[in-house]
Parts: sequence; C-alpha cells; structure tokens
Amino acid sequence: MSTSSPIHVGAVLFDGFELLDFYGPLEMFGLLEGEAKITVVAEKPGQVRSSGGPCGVAEAAMAGSGGFDVLLIPGGIGTRKAMLNPQFLAELTRLAEASQIVATVCTGSFLLARTGLLDRRKATSNKRVFQLVKSSAPKVEWMAKARWVEDGKYFTSSGVSAGMDMTLAVIAKLCGREKSLQIASRAEYEWHEDSSWDPFAAAWY
Amino acid sequence: MSTSSPIHVGAVLFDGFELLDFYGPLEMFGLLEGEAKITVVAEKPGQVRSSGGPCGVAEAAMAGSGGFDVLLIPGGIGTRKAMLNPQFLAELTRLAEASQIVATVCTGSFLLARTGLLDRRKATSNKRVFQLVKSSAPKVEWMAKARWVEDGKYFTSSGVSAGMDMTLAVIAKLCGREKSLQIASRAEYEWHEDSSWDPFAAAWY
Repeated sequence: MSTSSPIHVGAVLFDGFELLDFYGPLEMFGLLEGEAKITVVAEKPGQVRSSGGPCGVAEAAMAGSGGFDVLLIPGGIGTRKAMLNPQFLAELTRLAEASQIVATVCTGSFLLARTGLLDRRKATSNKRVFQLVKSSAPKVEWMAKARWVEDGKYFTSSGVSAGMDMTLAVIAKLCGREKSLQIASRAEYEWHEDSSWDPFAAAWY
Repeated sequence: MSTSSPIHVGAVLFDGFELLDFYGPLEMFGLLEGEAKITVVAEKPGQVRSSGGPCGVAEAAMAGSGGFDVLLIPGGIGTRKAMLNPQFLAELTRLAEASQIVATVCTGSFLLARTGLLDRRKATSNKRVFQLVKSSAPKVEWMAKARWVEDGKYFTSSGVSAGMDMTLAVIAKLCGREKSLQIASRAEYEWHEDSSWDPFAAAWY
C-alpha cells in the first residue's frame, strides 16, 4: 500500500446518513492534524441531511474525485435509497476501487456490498439488521461477532460507534499503534482495540 | 423542569468546534427520533468549519432563538476565540439562562464558565487542559475526576467522547434510564453509566 503525506481521507455523504457513523471516524482522522486531510464528497457538493436532522456539507462531487488513501462510507437509513441509485453506486464503486483503504461503518457495509466489491470477503455490519444484510448480500462472508473486520484493503465495522474503534485500527495500520493510543487519549475515548469485542452481537441474537 | 414534547435540543456551533463533541451527543438525541427535535444555531446561519476540517450547518441565528429544553455547547480549539467575542458570549448567556438544561462537552465547559453561570457550581472539562481551565475560571468548583458532572440544570462533561455518556444521562433524566439503554444499544455504544468513571484524569496528572 502506498499512501500520500498527508493521508488523504475521502468521506462519502448521502441523504439520511447516520451522524456518528460519519463524524466519529472523522474526529479520529481530524486528530491526526497535519498528518491527514479530509475531503467530504457526495453526488453533488452542498448540504446533505442526516437521519438525525443536522446537515453535513460536501465540498466536492464524487464524480470529480480520484481515489483516496482512505475512503470512508457511513451507514444510516439513507443507505436503502442510495443503493437503488445506479449513478451513486457507479461512483462509489469507482472510488472504492481507486482507493488504498476502504472503511465502512454500520449499514455502510451493506451499501458497499451492493457494488460486489465485498464478494468472497470477510465483512461485518451492524447487528440489529444483520440477518437482513446477510440474506441480501449472500456472497459476502458476513462475520456475526466482530467489532470490525479487516480483509485486504477493506475494513468493515459494526453499528454506529464501532466506526471509531475501526478507524483507530486503520490509523494504527497507517501510522503505528502508538499514534492511535495518543488520539484515543486526546479524545478521552476508550478504544476497544480487540476487534473480536462485540457484546452487541449477543444483544440482537 | 418543564420540557416540551418533542424535546427541543438547541446545539451551538462556532468556528473551530470539535466534531465528536457536537455530533456524538446529537447522534444520541437523534436516536430519540420523533421524541426530539434538533436545531443547530450559530452567530449567523450557514456553514461553520470544525477544527478537524469538515463543516457543520447552522439553521438559525442564536439571536433569533428562544430557550431550548436542552442547550448543547461543544468544545474545541475555537472556544478560545469564541470566548473573546462579546456578542457571542451575550447570546450564549441568554440562551443558557432561558434553557431548561445546559449541557457542555470538553472545553465547552470552559466557554460556558466565561459567562459566569457556572460560578459556585460543580463542573468538569477535558483533562488535558484541566489546569488551565481551573486557573482561568477559579470561581467554578472544578471536579478533577468525573466523566461528567450534574449540578442543577447544568451538565458538564470531560473531553470529546465523554459528551456521549453525559448525553445518555441527560436522556435518562428526561425519558428514563430504559430509553438511554435502548439508544446505547442501537448505537452499539458502551455507555459509561457511572459518572465517576474517568481513567483519563489519571492519564494527564
């Protein structure tokens, strides 16, 4: 893997994204300060409404963007509509193929699965809709108990807050574990460093 | 305390706010779905840049807003500039006085302390700059080891991710503990329900 310096993070927005899926990981990348640069992209630039209400802002169109060092794909109720949009899916596929690392949170894994890029790969998603995700994308080797899963360049995480733990694992891969520990401490965040930690798997089965 | 239905959350943005201070709590309020309504306010409506880079969006001006059921004040490097802005501080004071609950995250506590409203109250803030906060606002009874502190209508939390634990405590107060447990489970978030849990106090002393 060859990443640029600073690490260029591309973060994908769509209507109905889940706030913490998106901003939890971006908080961690943001704490890399000069070592990372974040670009928020969407189908078109401008304001994009979250499922919770508040809007995010896309600075650039997906179509005008090249690959990133890390491509972040959040989940949220809006994934259901986004995965039925052929133009969005085509751009997502192109960006995922052109990026060094692709990291998905919650039902963002389900969205990425629709591109076919997770076929025959290990992946996880949130646990509340796990059976639906599993039956809808049967070529993916879905892991029922995992905070996050790394398979090749793909990092996929469980629901919502799991994206922060996964992101610290991505940062550890790119910048070393010590950097992730520093960032977790600055965010006063208790990093679940063990990717098999997943009490929520039991809660929903 | 008398809150409206749905619970009206006012969330304050300023340049250089910390992403997770803001969107972590808003994720939790957002999961109340129809039971809460979020309005993002700032000195003027429009895009507001975070310390990490991505912009948030304020829908309304603070000056045009009345009090809220919950007023959320994030922290971030931008608090240093915001606390030197008399017009911003005047509006923050007015909104805090008119709101039923005021909840601050990280250096958002320091910002609120500048209004004088935390004088002679117990409060906490993030631990990395705790000594600075303590010496700069000596009339506040700063608690060195606390994930969050509740004193009257004021909830103040430790750094960044502590805002989520505090918000679940606010929701428990307004809607009952069962609701907070449901929301934490939906967000696959391990709620630190004990407000005295604070390993980060030791890390910085």
